[in-house]
Order: sequence, then structure tokens, then C-alpha cells
Amino acid sequence: MFIDLRDRSGIVQVVFNPAYSGEALTTADKVRSEYVLSVTGTVVKRDAETINKNLPTGELEVQITDIEVLNGSKTPPFFIEDGVEVDESLRLKYRYLDLRRPEMQKTLLLRSKASKIFRDFLDGEEFIEVETPILTKSSPEGARDYLVPSRVHSGEFFALPQSPQIYKQLLMVGGIERYYQIARCFRDEDLRADRQPEFTQVDIETSFLDRDTLLNMMERLMVRLFRETVGFELPTPFQRITHAEAMSKYGSDKPDLRFGLELVELNDIVANSGVKVFASVIEKGGEVKCLNAKGCGTWSRKDIDDLGVFAGRYGAKGLAWIQVKEGEFKGPIVKFFTEEEIAAVKERTGAEEGDLLLFSADNKKVVADVLGALRLKIGRQLGLIDDNVFKFAWVTDFPLLSYDEDAKRYVAEHHPFTRPNDEDLELFDTDPLKVRAQAYDIVLNGYEVGGGSMRIYKRDIQEKMFNALGLSPEDAYDKFGYLLDAFEYGTPPHGGIAFGLDRLVMLLSKRTNLRETIAFPKTASATDLLMDAPSPVENVQLEQLHIKLAKKPGEDKKEKENA
Amino acid sequence: MFIDLRDRSGIVQVVFNPAYSGEALTTADKVRSEYVLSVTGTVVKRDAETINKNLPTGELEVQITDIEVLNGSKTPPFFIEDGVEVDESLRLKYRYLDLRRPEMQKTLLLRSKASKIFRDFLDGEEFIEVETPILTKSSPEGARDYLVPSRVHSGEFFALPQSPQIYKQLLMVGGIERYYQIARCFRDEDLRADRQPEFTQVDIETSFLDRDTLLNMMERLMVRLFRETVGFELPTPFQRITHAEAMSKYGSDKPDLRFGLELVELNDIVANSGVKVFASVIEKGGEVKCLNAKGCGTWSRKDIDDLGVFAGRYGAKGLAWIQVKEGEFKGPIVKFFTEEEIAAVKERTGAEEGDLLLFSADNKKVVADVLGALRLKIGRQLGLIDDNVFKFAWVTDFPLLSYDEDAKRYVAEHHPFTRPNDEDLELFDTDPLKVRAQAYDIVLNGYEVGGGSMRIYKRDIQEKMFNALGLSPEDAYDKFGYLLDAFEYGTPPHGGIAFGLDRLVMLLSKRTNLRETIAFPKTASATDLLMDAPSPVENVQLEQLHIKLAKKPGEDKKEKENA
Repeated sequence: MFIDLRDRSGIVQVVFNPAYSGEALTTADKVRSEYVLSVTGTVVKRDAETINKNLPTGELEVQITDIEVLNGSKTPPFFIEDGVEVDESLRLKYRYLDLRRPEMQKTLLLRSKASKIFRDFLDGEEFIEVETPILTKSSPEGARDYLVPSRVHSGEFFALPQSPQIYKQLLMVGGIERYYQIARCFRDEDLRADRQPEFTQVDIETSFLDRDTLLNMMERLMVRLFRETVGFELPTPFQRITHAEAMSKYGSDKPDLRFGLELVELNDIVANSGVKVFASVIEKGGEVKCLNAKGCGTWSRKDIDDLGVFAGRYGAKGLAWIQVKEGEFKGPIVKFFTEEEIAAVKERTGAEEGDLLLFSADNKKVVADVLGALRLKIGRQLGLIDDNVFKFAWVTDFPLLSYDEDAKRYVAEHHPFTRPNDEDLELFDTDPLKVRAQAYDIVLNGYEVGGGSMRIYKRDIQEKMFNALGLSPEDAYDKFGYLLDAFEYGTPPHGGIAFGLDRLVMLLSKRTNLRETIAFPKTASATDLLMDAPSPVENVQLEQLHIKLAKKPGEDKKEKENA
Repeated sequence: MFIDLRDRSGIVQVVFNPAYSGEALTTADKVRSEYVLSVTGTVVKRDAETINKNLPTGELEVQITDIEVLNGSKTPPFFIEDGVEVDESLRLKYRYLDLRRPEMQKTLLLRSKASKIFRDFLDGEEFIEVETPILTKSSPEGARDYLVPSRVHSGEFFALPQSPQIYKQLLMVGGIERYYQIARCFRDEDLRADRQPEFTQVDIETSFLDRDTLLNMMERLMVRLFRETVGFELPTPFQRITHAEAMSKYGSDKPDLRFGLELVELNDIVANSGVKVFASVIEKGGEVKCLNAKGCGTWSRKDIDDLGVFAGRYGAKGLAWIQVKEGEFKGPIVKFFTEEEIAAVKERTGAEEGDLLLFSADNKKVVADVLGALRLKIGRQLGLIDDNVFKFAWVTDFPLLSYDEDAKRYVAEHHPFTRPNDEDLELFDTDPLKVRAQAYDIVLNGYEVGGGSMRIYKRDIQEKMFNALGLSPEDAYDKFGYLLDAFEYGTPPHGGIAFGLDRLVMLLSKRTNLRETIAFPKTASATDLLMDAPSPVENVQLEQLHIKLAKKPGEDKKEKENA
């Protein structure tokens, strides 16, 4: 009789035999799946014919002389094995069983190891780990805060931190010089597959280092992380690409650089084109760009229509295209082109026999979104993306500000503490959108895995920034006075970065969902299915916190039923 | 001209001289305290007569050729130096300046190092670091929860965890086998000097290990921690003392074992004593105990009266005493003793010439509180406590339950998941207060620095425990159903411990206040003086969270003014 005995390290086959097992055989007979056992026996080599080459322990077995059942088990609601096809909500409800599956164990182990490597590296570079508060102050800038009512101070609230940003800057003011923390952060936003209400970032801040020294140090950190977790040797230096170039060539501020298929701009060529929509878009300040889908010239009309539907999801009103067949441009719009335009487009896009040219004409954002998404889709479809490659790059020179059409004001592209480029300072008053930030993102295979900036460290510049964001001096001081004050007491130049640990682990472990990297994740509706949180609480708890529910429990439900 | 230039590593003297400094001299002349400088120069040996032996860099100076002022500074509100005598609230408001003081830097560095040692040790023992949620479920047992209203689920709340207790047990159910986390925990309690609303514990859980294997491993961890942080060599094994013995001998469940002065019980001797209060207390089931304050027999009446006042703070209604002078017992109560009683007391307490015997007669708790406090006070006063010694001990065999007179029910002494001693199981139904728990605290110099237990891992025992705590089966399942369910799917025997990191760092760095070990602590009224949190929030934030304030802002204040 055989039992596959599993612990964290793997599986071993234990054998019961009347020859040596005695009473243990009787007990073993009652053992069912997922029972917890303690066994005693002799490790022996298996007979040649029973060797299992698919198991690391496949050449061994353990001949059992004694067994104790430490705990029994009901039949689990799903099989404890990899690749199990079961509804995710069932896996989350029984997460304690799901975690027993080898791929979950492997991912949590990888995550633990990754944290250790971060820590060891930063420790070696003389960083100090400092814990910053979780109960902190609500900040009007940025995403929505999770709030915590105060019992001691009636009507007042703590907020959970969206990041330790201000605390880490104050640590630099405090002379800590090199700080890190693997920090829990919180954003009360509507969730997508790659967001969680609470997430973990490796938070780093340094004084006195210039940008390139910091980025080079972080490259060494990534090299060590990837070498020691997945054995991948990252080439250095990482590619550096400005935000403007990334948007122009790849239609994305987090380009997947594992493949080409760069976008090309055609404004100068088609400004007076017979394709009316091209000409009119350009007149209105928009853009016409083209993606050369190499070798897709033979795709069917249906295939191309499907691309059009896909492009529509990213805001495209239509998708113009040209196929290169038998040496000629083919397609409905070709007849509106002049010979010269065709020649110029051909040269600019490098169009060759069998290519498919896809055009987007719209405002800059839509063009980038549409062609950026098409580029990724087609790159994937053409097999241009090597899943075994990790391709890092730095995206630099982000704009400092963008204009929020809804709020009718400038907002910080990164955050309000990002230092503007010194040479752009005078643009603050004349052309704020042109001011570039000393900000940088680190992107990996099309994901943003981190980002940071050099920070403002002088009060007058910080005030200029708050002013640009529409904060009156009084409001600015009311909300960030402690920081403005701090900058007047000898603040060193400083800057830092934060890595998204969940996302890095997701990419390292080749998962596609952040929830797979977190032991006890929340669902897309921010629910913990295992513990059933959030949940109603006792009235007395609310009274102690000086709050009331806006609606009675259940009132919401009734309203919905009546609607 | 000299400037003491400081960075995280210390101070160095930089020198400006017309001979080599050029224009730098002019700039240096404008430098004030706490300015941030970048300097270039040559490191040279100082002349013999200018060597400063109090400074690690005292034999060197730097002759400056170039200087840049990176940032200026106003005059700080207090001196940036150790031992600064300034109101703590000012230090907390300007924490970024306070953190520049060498002793704060040293403490934060020590804390970072301690965390690293914990992690390295546990990593070496094959523990996996797993992060558990901060947004979790409110638990009716234990201290008061911090609550977080849910935006998505109207009328429902998350709670911040008082500890990751249940999650770490579920990780054991999930086959993680060895888990640790340096975890932030939250308790909304009224604060004392050694409490913070958020605190950090090194949280550890293991499967399959028995108690002694775990405790021995933890001893090795402490040995390494103390060796590598403060160079103190802890003797092992640590002393082990049962809860009953600790209460009896030291009047405390966290005895300071650096000195003796043990309490002795006198019930049998004084049960029929002429000292009426002794006899009546014993009759009522109370206790009479004595502390022999060695060598305090010469203390004045005033000194002894002061002890009485001190004892009163711990609940003593009076403090009976006897001095041993000229070979005889002296004091107001001596006349009520018989010769035999005097002889017996003398023998039991080891009273000698020059000793002072202090008596407490009351219920067990008051006697322990009073004599325990007197023991510490007198031990300190007599110089019996060596501040350079770290004396660890394990306190074991805590009672599982205690009786809450207010709630009129049993409550868990440790927590509801603690495993009872196997041999005490039958006492559950007959004499619940006699059931001992497989729980242990680790105490250091009179502080509890950690605690843990072997956990219940079978559903029937857990149900028995909930039942003892007065939870109906329905309520128990409603609140802890996920755990009861989990125990039915093959849960291994498990147990763990948690160390209070803040307190350990406090003791390692010989501070007396937890706030000194935390970069950004809260005050005793749970306020962050630096950021001014908690604070009022916008109405729209409350609306989104489906809550209202119970009182209008300011209403509290008005009520107080009217009162």
C-alpha cells in the first residue's frame, strides 16, 4: 500500500507492507486525501521498475514502521494540484486549501525570496529600514483615501497611506540619507485585474545622490533580483527612453520593448491628403500615425474588420488600412492618395510586399491608445514577443503637469513633490505643460513596475508647484505646512523610487493576475471572501467612533429592489 | 575658520583658510547652523595640539578648496544634540529635526539592524515571509478595533488587525509550515507610556514543532539578536518559570529576574495571628505574604511611610512592617505575634539583623500587585538591578481562562485559539479556571517582550473553547466559521510566538519610552503632532463612505464650554 506524503518541500512515496509495517498498515488503510500524518520508517532506493522520473524523490521510497494520524480531513471542494480548473471565488473562499497547491507555494516562496533580495541589497548599500505610520493624514491630492474614524478625537479621521511619500521625504530632512521600507499602501479605487485595495511597494529614498547614480544602483538591484530568483541575466545598462519618445514610437508610457513594430508619424505627408479625415484631424491639431503590421498583408477582410472593432475599444472612430500586394498599395483609401504620398508613406513606414499598414487619425491620446494597443495585439499574434525575456527600460522626462479637463486645472502627472527640470523652471509661468519633471518610471515587458523622481527640496519651488496646482498659499500651508516648514531647516537634495512588489512578483512568476501573488487577496469588489470582510459592526462600535450610518443596514438593498 | 560638518556617519571638522580656500572662505562665512553643504578638500592629519580625542574623526580635518551651499536653514527650535532638554511635544512636531540627533539616529539604525537579524535568522531556518491583510474583519474578542468604512459595501466596515493571528493559523492550514512577518498591528486602546495605537510585532508560526523545539529555536534567535546588536552574550537555556511560580515568588507574570527579593507566603504561620487583619484575610480566602527588604532595617519611619503611600497606589489598604534591630523584631505589629510566630516568620523570610519585612494581606491579586511593585522599587533603590545585564526567562503554563467580573463570563487569558494542556481537558467542564494553557511569554528584565502558544487545531476543542467563552454554537460559527471549517480539512498541529519589536528595541537601546524607538510615533492621545492627524475630512468623503458624523464638528467643544 502506498501513500503520497506531501509537505512544503514536495512529495515522497511512503510504503506500507505487512513485512515491516505491522499495525501501521491497519491505520494507513483508513487514511484519506489531505489527512495529516506523522510517519516513521526507512528511506530506501526503489526497485528500478518503480522509479518515477517525474518526481524529484522518484528514486526513493520510505518503508513505514509507524504511523500517527495527526488530523483528519473531509474531501476538499477542489483538487489540491496545479492548473486546477475551478472558479476563483471558490479558491478564495477556501484559500487555505488553495495555498497548498504547488504553484501557490512556489509563488509565495518566490515573493519571500524577492523581498529578502531587496533587503539584502539595500542593506549592503547602507540603507536603513524605517517603518512609517499606517494611521496618517488624509491628503487631498491623489487617489481616494481609506479613512479611519478617531475615537479620541470626535469627528476626526486618520487616513491609510497611499504611499509613505511625505514620511520618506521627512526622513531625508531628518538626515537618514538612505531609507527603504517594504511598505503597505492603500487606494480606495475601483479595481482592475492588476489593482488591489492594499498593495506592497518597495519604497526607497536617498539624499545627495543624483538621478543617474540612483538609477544605476537600482539597475544593479534588478540584476541581482532576477539572477537570484529566476536565473535570468539582465543586460545593463537598461535602455533609457524619454516619455515623449515612448509615446511617439510605442503609443505608451510603459512600452513593451521586446519587439519593434514602431509607430511612425505621417502628419507632414498627409496634411493635404485627399483622405479628408487625415487632413481635417491635422488641421485641428491632431495626428495621423501608422503602424506597419509586418507580413499581415494577406490577412482577410474579416481579420482586418476585427482589428477595427478592437481599435474601437480604445477610442478609434474607424481604422484605415492599406495592404501591400503584388508590389502595390491596396485598400479602400488608396485611391485618395497621390503618387508622391504613396511613395513617401512607403519610405517612412518601410512598407514591403505582404505588409499591412494601419492608420489612426485623431487627437494625440487616442492615436497613442489605439496604435499602442494594436501594436501589442499584433506583436503577440505574430509571435514577436518572447515570454522568456525580461526587457527593462527607464522612461524619463515625464511632463510635470497635465491639464484635467473635468477639474479645469493642472494636476501633477507624478505627484506634487516631483522636482521640475532646472532648465524648465521659467516655463512654469509661461507654458506649464512644457515643464518636464525629474521623474522616471521603470518598465518591464509593457508593465510599469516602479517609478520615482528627484524631489523638490526648496520651499519657493514647492510653493510654485502648489500654486500651479491651484492651491492658494493658505490652502497649501493648511495642507502641507509641515513640509513647507521642513524645507526651511536644512533639507538635503533627495530623490527616490518605489517598486510595485506585487507586480514584480507577478512578472517573475509568469502569472497574469496580482491575486496569484498575494496570500489573502481581495476580489475586484474589494471583498475578502475567506473572512467575509468588510462586514457590519456593532452599533456600540460606531457610537464610540462618533459616526452613524448614512443609511440603515439593508436600506440600500430595499432601494434596489424598488427600483 | 572651522565648520563641524555632520552626516549620518558622524561629524568631521572642515577647515577654511585663505592659503587654500579662496572664495570658499567667503561662502563659508555665511554658513549657519544646519545648512546643507557640499565641500571639496583634502583630508589631513591634525596638528598634535588640535586633536580631539572625544571625536572618532578627531585626528583628522579636511582642508576645503570648494564649497557649495545646497540648502540654508533657519535657526532650529532646539539644539540638534543628545540629551536635549526640550518638551517632547516640540520634538514630535519637529520630528524631522529631532531625528537628526545622534541618539535618534542610533536607535533607528539599531531597529533596522534588529529587523535584519530577525529576518536573516528566520530565513536560515527556512521560514517564509508572508504578508497578511491590513484591511480585515472586525473581531469581537480582544481589544477595541480600528474600523475602516467600506465605500463599495454600504454600511460595512473593515477592521485593522490587532495581530495577524488568524491569518497565520490559516497559513499553517495552507501548508506554509514556517511563516514570519514583521507585522503592523493596531489597538484602539487608551494609551500608556509603553503602548502605541500601531505597533510592530515579529510574528512567527510553525507547524509540527513541539513547544520546546520552538522555544529553543527562539532562544537561539535572541542570542544572535543580542550578540549582533549590543554585543551581549545571553546565557542559555533561558530560565523557565511557571505562571503560578512567577506570581507567587515575584508578584508578577513578567518578573525582573536580575535580582532576588522573593516574596514568601505566610498563610500557614499567621492564620490564627493576633494581627486581626491577617487572620480575617486568610479566612476570606485571601493571602498574607512578606517581602524581606534586605538591609532596610535602618530606614526611617518617614521612609517606611513613603513605602506605604507607594503601596497604596497598587491597592494596598495599609502596609504592615517589621524591622530587625539588635536581634529583635521591632514595629507596631510585633506585639500581636506569638514567640512561635516570630520564630517561624524569621525562618521563612530569612530575616536577619538590619532587614525590613513588609507585609501585604489582601486578595491574591492585590498582594501580588503591591509586593511585586515594592520588590521592584526596593530592588532598584538598593542597587540590586544591574542595568548592563539582560535576563531572559520563559513564563509558562498560564491559565487558559480568567473570569471577567464585569461581563460575568470567562474570557481567554491569552486568546481563544490557545491550546489547553492535554491533561487538563476534562477540567473544562468541572473547573475551567484550573485549565492550563500551552501558552508562554518571554520576559526580559521585567518586560513582556513576546508571547505565544500552541494552537487549537481540532474543531471540537475549538468549539469547546468558544462555548466556555459564552459563545453559542451559532454565534461561534457566525464569527469564526471559516476557522472551524478550516480545521476540518487536514490542519497540522501548529504554534507560534510574536515578539514586540518596539519594546525589544527600547530595551536594547536602553530607552524608557516606546516613542523613542519609532520614527513617527503618536502621542498618548493618539495624535500625530507632526502632520496633525487625525483631522477633519471633506463631507464628500464621508458621503462616499455612507457615514455621517454623530455630532457636527465643533459640537463637542461647545458642549464642553457649556458644561
